[in-house]
Amino acid sequence: MDDTARRNFAYDTEAIRAKDVAHHVHPWTDFADFEKTGSMVVAEAEGATIYDSEGQGYLDGIGGLWCVNLGYGRDEIAQAMADQARRMVYYSSFGHHTSVPAAELAAKVTGLAPAGLNHVLFGTGGSMANDTAIRIVHFYFNRLGKPRKKKIITRHDGYHGSTYLAMSLTGVAFDHQGFDLVGEELIARISAPNCYRRPAGTTEAEFLDLLAGEFEAKVLELGPETVAAFIAEPIMGAGGVVVAPAGYHRRIWELCRKYEILYIADEVVTAFGRLGHFFASEAVFGMQPDILTCAKGFSSAYAPLSGTLISDAFHEVISVPQAPGALFTHGFTYSGHPVCCAAGLKTIEIMEREDICGHVRRVGPYFERRLKSLSDLPLVGDVRGSHFMLCVENVADKETKALLPGEVQIGKRIAAAAQARGVLVRPIAHLNVLSPPLILTEAQIDRMVETLRDSILAVQDDLVREGHWRG
Amino acid sequence: MDDTARRNFAYDTEAIRAKDVAHHVHPWTDFADFEKTGSMVVAEAEGATIYDSEGQGYLDGIGGLWCVNLGYGRDEIAQAMADQARRMVYYSSFGHHTSVPAAELAAKVTGLAPAGLNHVLFGTGGSMANDTAIRIVHFYFNRLGKPRKKKIITRHDGYHGSTYLAMSLTGVAFDHQGFDLVGEELIARISAPNCYRRPAGTTEAEFLDLLAGEFEAKVLELGPETVAAFIAEPIMGAGGVVVAPAGYHRRIWELCRKYEILYIADEVVTAFGRLGHFFASEAVFGMQPDILTCAKGFSSAYAPLSGTLISDAFHEVISVPQAPGALFTHGFTYSGHPVCCAAGLKTIEIMEREDICGHVRRVGPYFERRLKSLSDLPLVGDVRGSHFMLCVENVADKETKALLPGEVQIGKRIAAAAQARGVLVRPIAHLNVLSPPLILTEAQIDRMVETLRDSILAVQDDLVREGHWRG
Repeated sequence: MDDTARRNFAYDTEAIRAKDVAHHVHPWTDFADFEKTGSMVVAEAEGATIYDSEGQGYLDGIGGLWCVNLGYGRDEIAQAMADQARRMVYYSSFGHHTSVPAAELAAKVTGLAPAGLNHVLFGTGGSMANDTAIRIVHFYFNRLGKPRKKKIITRHDGYHGSTYLAMSLTGVAFDHQGFDLVGEELIARISAPNCYRRPAGTTEAEFLDLLAGEFEAKVLELGPETVAAFIAEPIMGAGGVVVAPAGYHRRIWELCRKYEILYIADEVVTAFGRLGHFFASEAVFGMQPDILTCAKGFSSAYAPLSGTLISDAFHEVISVPQAPGALFTHGFTYSGHPVCCAAGLKTIEIMEREDICGHVRRVGPYFERRLKSLSDLPLVGDVRGSHFMLCVENVADKETKALLPGEVQIGKRIAAAAQARGVLVRPIAHLNVLSPPLILTEAQIDRMVETLRDSILAVQDDLVREGHWRG
Repeated sequence: MDDTARRNFAYDTEAIRAKDVAHHVHPWTDFADFEKTGSMVVAEAEGATIYDSEGQGYLDGIGGLWCVNLGYGRDEIAQAMADQARRMVYYSSFGHHTSVPAAELAAKVTGLAPAGLNHVLFGTGGSMANDTAIRIVHFYFNRLGKPRKKKIITRHDGYHGSTYLAMSLTGVAFDHQGFDLVGEELIARISAPNCYRRPAGTTEAEFLDLLAGEFEAKVLELGPETVAAFIAEPIMGAGGVVVAPAGYHRRIWELCRKYEILYIADEVVTAFGRLGHFFASEAVFGMQPDILTCAKGFSSAYAPLSGTLISDAFHEVISVPQAPGALFTHGFTYSGHPVCCAAGLKTIEIMEREDICGHVRRVGPYFERRLKSLSDLPLVGDVRGSHFMLCVENVADKETKALLPGEVQIGKRIAAAAQARGVLVRPIAHLNVLSPPLILTEAQIDRMVETLRDSILAVQDDLVREGHWRG
């Protein structure tokens, strides 16, 4: 079966693109050429394949945006959402109101989560989940009578979202350009645990010591009595699929315990199977965060849904009424939206029934091995990641790890070459990221990796011809 | 037809409530009694009626939360969502990708909006829409080379959401308790334009002069070169359905023009028909905001959907590329979610086909008139609002406008009395707010108002008997 066979569609692509260019402001827009080139119209999708409005199919190596974990066209999720919309589409979960799917999902998701994370605040996306995490950390330390304990330690190249507060937690410098951030009275930054770019001559274990030392030095510099929390993705996502040295999260988590600092695990990308488990913090990294945020795979992207999970100990503090009549005044109209919760429940049901985590644990290592086979290419400096969260780092020189000039837009060029060959991979600066649906077969993985090889080789040739690269 | 006739359901209410209490942290939770009383389980709904899991029906005076504008159980919206979920459930709108419903909805909503608001950034709720508005205002003035022009003027009792930034814009002091906010280096507050509680002896016109004078004085005190924007709801929502004196918005908007201050209209509640028009800013208040945010009625709450609409002039500034390769790095995974946009498109189609705005313009004045008939009750100090956005302010003394003691929880008591009689109204402190689905008939309005009268009378009697009130 050809995953990308052309279909016959009757969309009026030009009319749709014209409306889009004239009226739709996209996230992460490149305004330099948006008006000229317009958008690719993604019109239909099935399994791991998406089709543009002209009927061209592409094997989706991006998984929507690290999120369509169960693949496209799952009739039973669509049906569950429609059933819920017909039965009871929405009622506020403010105060003492709930819906059947919100109550069921709260119990289900906390049952799957690491020990002790027994309570959930719902939202509609990862930014909101992280913004909520910090807001309730403020509340927590205010309730404990420690109003000075408010600083958040975050990492360069971490990605935590795009509200004002979530983007301030984010450490990707590229994403900060032109926007304002919360200042260092609240945010402190430490290094990304990037093994590929660690100091020359250090072992991974020595690098871990350096990172843990930097964290502890930062805590002591700020004063532990001012540090509220540390936030980290188990594996950095948009910052470049950065895998920390072995033992990093457990080590930092133990330092957090030592200084009464809360550990917030941002599992927006890693939760719901991408690393082969419903949640990675405990199963993969051996630690129990105080707060855990999730989104994306939570509903397999069928509806906007996120969760901010909190521990019993944390809940015990925030649920003591602060004053007669006072409420816990945080949350959103669409917190616990019944249709979104129905999508989440059905997603988890399918994941369990089809043993999606087991599939990822079985096929993930194959995916890693196959992708690592690209390491022989002269442009490929590093292949890294875990299971269904992988990335290729392109360099000008494998020895020095020097990058190609920015204007080459190497990630974009390789992504374009792969797209022309029927496979979508995500360009992030000089990287190409792979985060496909978790249902990928070994044959589809082969196709994806071989196409990427062909694309890198083709771009290599072009770069040499254009004089951008000596080869 | 009885709107609240009992139905036979087979839900296991106790099991659902137990899961909810143990695991679900609600927005605006009253932790003082949540664990004891648990939640009302809203299980089914149809038209303007919701049913709890025991089968009891209630006429919904809250409209979900100012949002289920078309009422419950609209099969064709459920169908449109399911069709889109089957066809192409999600693809990122980052960079140069779009979907058919996102492109169509961008064109449709900007076509309905006030003149010049031709571009939209999508999100999943009002908080996100307002957070986005301020983030892009930062970007705008940075691009103009005015990095000091960043302060936002907002109003006491304004409600703008619950992210860190959106709650900082919010002026409802009750909602700030226990949480942290952005400081006055970025946020400045002015008075609520509350006609009912204006200085004794002033006319409405004099009150307007006072308010406009206060605004201009605040601008001059801060320095116009530091003031970026003013944000306001056309009619304040959660802050108490506060209707400003006639001409207020136009007058402030003209002052904004004078000092190069952007006007952000928060139409999260008022847009999509609640005041009888798709948008109220121009049609009702005669001004053209630079930025307009909407959510709630945008999808009739069938799916999380919001928009931040911006003017051509604003778009022209932010769409000049800031540097080679730099992107406009703002937005969310679920910006332009195809299923949510399909819900939005179908909502607008139904609103146009059934002339919902015309219905509100016809029936709204009847609703206002009927509700004002409660003014003869000794407890009722004020009845205010417009069309399908109304409120009763309960007082201890109509002359002095003094309030009952907080522990009486007058709003909650009246809401409970109405609920026992089959009608839901929203208690906010000493107020009872009405924001029902826009499909209400005159007969349903009669039922709602008569029930509220009976409920207030019953509570009055109780208060006298308990010695809380002399009557």
